[in-house]
Amino acid sequence: MAKPTEQEYKAILEKCSNWGRWGKDDERGALNFITAAKRAAAAKLVQTGEAVSLALPLPTIPAPDNPTPVTHLVQQAGYDSHDLPLLPYAADYFAIAPHGLATTHLDALCHVFYQGKMYNGFDASEVGSQGARKCAIDVARDGVISRGVLLDIPKLKKVDWLDNHTSISADDLDAAERAQGVTVEEGDVLFIRTGRAQQRKAKGGWDAFHEGMAGLDTSCLPWLHARKVAVLGSDGVSDAVPSGLDKFALPIHVCTLVMMGLHLIDNADLDALAAACARTSRYAFQFIMAPLILMRGTASPVNPLAIF
Amino acid sequence: MAKPTEQEYKAILEKCSNWGRWGKDDERGALNFITAAKRAAAAKLVQTGEAVSLALPLPTIPAPDNPTPVTHLVQQAGYDSHDLPLLPYAADYFAIAPHGLATTHLDALCHVFYQGKMYNGFDASEVGSQGARKCAIDVARDGVISRGVLLDIPKLKKVDWLDNHTSISADDLDAAERAQGVTVEEGDVLFIRTGRAQQRKAKGGWDAFHEGMAGLDTSCLPWLHARKVAVLGSDGVSDAVPSGLDKFALPIHVCTLVMMGLHLIDNADLDALAAACARTSRYAFQFIMAPLILMRGTASPVNPLAIF
Amino acid sequence: MAKPTEQEYKAILEKCSNWGRWGKDDERGALNFITAAKRAAAAKLVQTGEAVSLALPLPTIPAPDNPTPVTHLVQQAGYDSHDLPLLPYAADYFAIAPHGLATTHLDALCHVFYQGKMYNGFDASEVGSQGARKCAIDVARDGVISRGVLLDIPKLKKVDWLDNHTSISADDLDAAERAQGVTVEEGDVLFIRTGRAQQRKAKGGWDAFHEGMAGLDTSCLPWLHARKVAVLGSDGVSDAVPSGLDKFALPIHVCTLVMMGLHLIDNADLDALAAACARTSRYAFQFIMAPLILMRGTASPVNPLAIF
Amino acid sequence: MAKPTEQEYKAILEKCSNWGRWGKDDERGALNFITAAKRAAAAKLVQTGEAVSLALPLPTIPAPDNPTPVTHLVQQAGYDSHDLPLLPYAADYFAIAPHGLATTHLDALCHVFYQGKMYNGFDASEVGSQGARKCAIDVARDGVISRGVLLDIPKLKKVDWLDNHTSISADDLDAAERAQGVTVEEGDVLFIRTGRAQQRKAKGGWDAFHEGMAGLDTSCLPWLHARKVAVLGSDGVSDAVPSGLDKFALPIHVCTLVMMGLHLIDNADLDALAAACARTSRYAFQFIMAPLILMRGTASPVNPLAIF
Repeated sequence: MAKPTEQEYKAILEKCSNWGRWGKDDERGALNFITAAKRAAAAKLVQTGEAVSLALPLPTIPAPDNPTPVTHLVQQAGYDSHDLPLLPYAADYFAIAPHGLATTHLDALCHVFYQGKMYNGFDASEVGSQGARKCAIDVARDGVISRGVLLDIPKLKKVDWLDNHTSISADDLDAAERAQGVTVEEGDVLFIRTGRAQQRKAKGGWDAFHEGMAGLDTSCLPWLHARKVAVLGSDGVSDAVPSGLDKFALPIHVCTLVMMGLHLIDNADLDALAAACARTSRYAFQFIMAPLILMRGTASPVNPLAIF
Repeated sequence: MAKPTEQEYKAILEKCSNWGRWGKDDERGALNFITAAKRAAAAKLVQTGEAVSLALPLPTIPAPDNPTPVTHLVQQAGYDSHDLPLLPYAADYFAIAPHGLATTHLDALCHVFYQGKMYNGFDASEVGSQGARKCAIDVARDGVISRGVLLDIPKLKKVDWLDNHTSISADDLDAAERAQGVTVEEGDVLFIRTGRAQQRKAKGGWDAFHEGMAGLDTSCLPWLHARKVAVLGSDGVSDAVPSGLDKFALPIHVCTLVMMGLHLIDNADLDALAAACARTSRYAFQFIMAPLILMRGTASPVNPLAIF
Repeated sequence: MAKPTEQEYKAILEKCSNWGRWGKDDERGALNFITAAKRAAAAKLVQTGEAVSLALPLPTIPAPDNPTPVTHLVQQAGYDSHDLPLLPYAADYFAIAPHGLATTHLDALCHVFYQGKMYNGFDASEVGSQGARKCAIDVARDGVISRGVLLDIPKLKKVDWLDNHTSISADDLDAAERAQGVTVEEGDVLFIRTGRAQQRKAKGGWDAFHEGMAGLDTSCLPWLHARKVAVLGSDGVSDAVPSGLDKFALPIHVCTLVMMGLHLIDNADLDALAAACARTSRYAFQFIMAPLILMRGTASPVNPLAIF
Repeated sequence: MAKPTEQEYKAILEKCSNWGRWGKDDERGALNFITAAKRAAAAKLVQTGEAVSLALPLPTIPAPDNPTPVTHLVQQAGYDSHDLPLLPYAADYFAIAPHGLATTHLDALCHVFYQGKMYNGFDASEVGSQGARKCAIDVARDGVISRGVLLDIPKLKKVDWLDNHTSISADDLDAAERAQGVTVEEGDVLFIRTGRAQQRKAKGGWDAFHEGMAGLDTSCLPWLHARKVAVLGSDGVSDAVPSGLDKFALPIHVCTLVMMGLHLIDNADLDALAAACARTSRYAFQFIMAPLILMRGTASPVNPLAIF
């Protein structure tokens, strides 16, 4: 697809808006597509009980795509725990800025702004020194439990991973559905695999914001909106980088988080999931994710799980 | 039950040992009780799709039982995000020592030692400056997915919460099973409710290691061992404090983590779960927990979920 | 002195303003009173070479006046440094929020605002997510080197320490000068001792913002302004708490930092200094302080030194 | 000089030992060379009052020689300080691992070990999970105040900076003394300039532990020992990298810290100092450094000052 003009992109933003859809006070956005009935139905997908993690280990080593890794320090080691005779123990400490490019995390709806507003029209200034007063990550405190679906684009394209300048179009999503025999439905948690995690394992991390990263083009936005996806995840950041738009570095982020109220899972590791799906020929599964309850937070590191 | 002598306690430790049960290199302990079949069966427990979180919010405010709260800071606020025209965003940062008494967390098997050893005989010195080389929290990276069971002791005793000097005995566990019509089975994730979270909401946190906290007495240890529980959780720390043993501050921690290889969930919030169980008259549910993949970590903050 | 009305206090603020005194772009305020000649003269005060620290140890233990202590963790212990045969070493890490009530620190002029402005009329919004663009602590990167003077008020009042509800007046400052045989001069770094550090050692820290703390009343503000003090320090926070003003929690902070451009040293330990001054009958000394160069910072922890 | 054999280096270690020199319990090492009389004499060096910082700004941006920069975050911005009407303020937070290659810091004597021992024979295991029980940085809590001397080797060699594979010999130190008309004396704080800071400003930081860095060769060790230097500083890390010794990555560190009890200042910025010395033709000055009082710490970030 040709890159959209700024005007065309703004028309997409307008068209895909869910502002007001669940009331003017709503802070949960597309999570509202997940009903108790949806959760109950998702549990019925479980057959063998095989479980797969969709997360990278928390990255503690600096890398080109991870200049500020997790700080992991030992508060109390085992080797001198004999100093604590009543309870010899070990303990540790970690510090994390969850939005890093090598951290599997769930973006809150307060993470990105458009024209000074977040989802549902709340002002950007609602995220102040004390955190987010609106649309913080704790809106997902009871977990994200639904049907999960994987669309494996490298498999569709018969490559190990997508080249870093590849854009995925709505037509690609349709083709992947057909090839995999699965259809994305209302309330699904949808993962788009680009093969970035696999490329990273093979070649090491790269400075993806400068050197490029495969992701969705803007034609996918109306598609996601029409399908009523509840959460979108990727082994990249959903966006193709560079975006092709001069004024929007991450147009998928802006439209999903701000206009659609669609939470994003960035930097998942979808390789084990892809293998499990291929092995079972099943691209839908029970999906469960339990963000930490960080009140007023803009994100949470997560370890999303698929159960087959 | 009378408090055991040191000798009696050491006999319990010996009797409840699972060292070598799953091989001399095993680092997963009682998690091995959870099979794929167990996970598949647990999914079948889901009826209505109601989901309940078993976690406290991450505690960012100092309290008597939380002298070192989570540090939560804003890296980039929304109010000055217009300085970033290509992608106006907000982001934050948090630092956490997960073992705090107000943090819902999963203890790794490397957290506590007995006679210089952790589970399966690995040396305490395996937890060094760079973290745990054995029995770290990432052994649970694919999640803990099983049947969950709640035993609600305040409900059994017809009180709002147990007094801070209450010990729960194996007989109490049996009585709770009968009263609730549920039986703990191999591979279950078992939660024992003391009402601490509810007391905390009513009265604020107290310095539980000095002022006392309800929990299990040592008669429960052979019970847990015989039932082949996979993970044990509590709204306290499973241990009664003080323990009544001069030389062991937390005898339940020592026996479960070190001898049985039984991971512990400390400081859960079981009030909403208790309400859901009472409302549905169902004390067994699909249980899912996804610890962060912190390689070499001694614990992870968690947000455990129950699905009905 | 009777507590001033709000109107009287505002008149003091206006009278004591140094805005524009050193040009409209100035960010150093009263540090401008310290000239090279002043520094050279201060060095001539040294006689015996005795050196005294005016700092508390960095506080790593929670206390009622220090709910968020310094985090000090060991990155690499000596214990297992043999794992690093080419360079067995130990290293550590600390995290600090310098403004705590038990941390000896230097407040930058950007720390406090009045009517939305900091010193010299810069807008409060100059302190954003990325730190302070104006009046940050690095304005003192070449050190604060001058004549130091101690006024020891408990000594004047013949008490061990001032009661927590004591206000020190300009008359007290005059009386202390006379009693000690010293006169505060242009460019001096002035320390006012209340005995708080000594009281703290005797009784432990208290929640000073709620229970009170001795300090200056507003009559001292014109006095400090007239004397052309360069930096003001105290073993408290210079302010008397409570202030007696309904709308200003710390009126000394506001007038000194915002209007006078006078940097403040909070929570010094002046006990050893007082002893040295009494022993030598000298209340003036070479003073040296070297704030860390934290670009855009609002404060620095410091270890100020007096040399006799 | 030819690189020493391992045996020759070990002979130097033995020869330069100060173990026991100031008693078997001593933890201050060569700081003992600084007497009150030395401090008093140093103050007399001050003539003009010009002051120069010898520190780099705390590095908050990742660089090849600084993979783990200082974390600097705003706790409370000015922007939204109007939410705090009684005291509108700004505050921040920083986290630092002081030993980084772009941080001007003072190494404690507990930082490095030789054959399992630190200075004066204390065991490496004295640095445990709770920090250093011996030779921690707080031994310098009353400041390091003495005569400072700069030896400017690039000036001697008539280059802007030393090539990264340059070793400085004892003969070079002698030649620099002669060229500059200064003699290093007992108790001096000695700075050796390599021009690294200047090279860094010109070309950016490089991965100095892999790509090399100018510094002292082992012939300087007996020289430093004979001269009774109190503290040694450099714009590098004093050591030449690589060292030329197979089994010792930093032989200068080992001999100075462990055997001589000589504290090291790493990663100073000596460019402004060199300019001031050249301008005044004076290579000796009052030197003052005030490490933070971090009890049990292995280092402190510092902002050392020279006063002319």
